[in-house]
Amino acid sequence: MSREFDVLDANSAFYRAFSARDLAAMEALWADDAPVVCVHPGWDALRGRDEVIQSWRAILDGVDSLVVRCSHAFAQVLGDTALVVCREHVSGGQLVATNVFVRERGTWKLVHHQASPLASDDDDGDSEEPLN
Amino acid sequence: MSREFDVLDANSAFYRAFSARDLAAMEALWADDAPVVCVHPGWDALRGRDEVIQSWRAILDGVDSLVVRCSHAFAQVLGDTALVVCREHVSGGQLVATNVFVRERGTWKLVHHQASPLASDDDDGDSEEPLN
Repeated sequence: MSREFDVLDANSAFYRAFSARDLAAMEALWADDAPVVCVHPGWDALRGRDEVIQSWRAILDGVDSLVVRCSHAFAQVLGDTALVVCREHVSGGQLVATNVFVRERGTWKLVHHQASPLASDDDDGDSEEPLN
Repeated sequence: MSREFDVLDANSAFYRAFSARDLAAMEALWADDAPVVCVHPGWDALRGRDEVIQSWRAILDGVDSLVVRCSHAFAQVLGDTALVVCREHVSGGQLVATNVFVRERGTWKLVHHQASPLASDDDDGDSEEPLN
């Protein structure tokens, strides 16, 4: 399970960088060598590190405050690649996210992020889940 | 590039099964050994082969006709895992999809699918792109 925990740590770091609007931390989380792709909600896919980082700069600079909480994170390690599927809690609703990581020089790095809104909130108390 | 082509073939087979409402073909495309996850547009994540296949049964049985075209497919092979990001064209709009495959007994099998709607169609003539 330790590899799953390492991946979940990397996933948590992504949401910390997101909420803290910390572009440097966000940049460091994305892979340097492997090609990266990012699909923000409603957006077309962005390809390549420059385009992806630029989108995060715009998002993190574009709001005064931003709290993104992650719950229900579930990691699946497939060799040197790992998938995390989780929920994102933002003001206004919940999303489902897929985050894909690869190992680069011993560290799990993001190569893919896609988030899409849940059609409606459910009532199972998920908003009270602890942060992952 | 041959591995990328093989993955794109598997990706095309997914959309053929989808459009043909061919549940048997759809079932055969999903991994038998690796855990699977599927995020339909607006849905929460479904985990496990039984739950995922049941969702496809409901979707494929639930409509009289269904044409899902795929374009802009781009494959990235990461060892024995591969990511495909593509657009889905359905009546009513376009979506962006992530499909993740793993190699099982020499064949690329789906372990993850997430599709989310594009906020609006663009006008770059993408609807005329050939099927991938």
